[in-house]
Amino acid sequence: MRAMDALPLPRPDVTALLARGVTRMLLDHGLTPILEVPLANGRRADVMALTPHGEIWIVETKSCLADYACDEKWPDYLEYCDRFFFGVTETFPRDHIPEEVGLIVADGFGGAILRESVVRPLVAARRKAVTLLFARLAAQRLSLL
Amino acid sequence: MRAMDALPLPRPDVTALLARGVTRMLLDHGLTPILEVPLANGRRADVMALTPHGEIWIVETKSCLADYACDEKWPDYLEYCDRFFFGVTETFPRDHIPEEVGLIVADGFGGAILRESVVRPLVAARRKAVTLLFARLAAQRLSLL
Repeated sequence: MRAMDALPLPRPDVTALLARGVTRMLLDHGLTPILEVPLANGRRADVMALTPHGEIWIVETKSCLADYACDEKWPDYLEYCDRFFFGVTETFPRDHIPEEVGLIVADGFGGAILRESVVRPLVAARRKAVTLLFARLAAQRLSLL
Repeated sequence: MRAMDALPLPRPDVTALLARGVTRMLLDHGLTPILEVPLANGRRADVMALTPHGEIWIVETKSCLADYACDEKWPDYLEYCDRFFFGVTETFPRDHIPEEVGLIVADGFGGAILRESVVRPLVAARRKAVTLLFARLAAQRLSLL
């Protein structure tokens, strides 16, 4: 019998752990994150968070290189945030991540920002729309509990 | 032994039922409500909700006339919303509610808008600040679950 704890976790489990670690790290930094935010362009952000001053961050979590390679649409997220990061595990081959985006390394318990994102401030109307989307989505989810 | 169901509910129970009924009514109207929102002026809104277009409503729930009479500070809420309502029970003496504010009658299951509120649109900077406060509060509460 093989030792179960020696097996790599299935991808959805790694993704869930990453989302939890990224969420905790963002809370520690004073941001307020929510998961799975549908955007007007049909994409869905894995993690979206607001700073106390209203800056909008998106973090796309990637469990492995195959998961990353499936996702060629990451520039689409840039229209909906001021800063964009990939959130990956410690073992992820980081040299595949483009230089111009931020990089967060996380596990199930927390994470760290290894590289800051370039800041591309949203225009006011877009920021207003995304903040409202975020606010209504978070409140709807609270109401469903 | 007195029949318990003949006794009026204690005030906190009535307040909780009112908040639930008002919340359901707002959701039915397409708004997204959250409860107990601390405002920058030190007051706390019982219910705050956002319309799909970002209009901000505040509903103060009043379980009885004594509860209403304690609260002389309702004009303070007007600085933080586009529409202001009192939310009361069916038996509340409605003639005590000022004409210029909205009136919602609710029980634990739902409610109805008996009188629309005057609309006093917030200035853009205030709307932005209140929407951000709402968004971060709702996300923080989700994160604590």
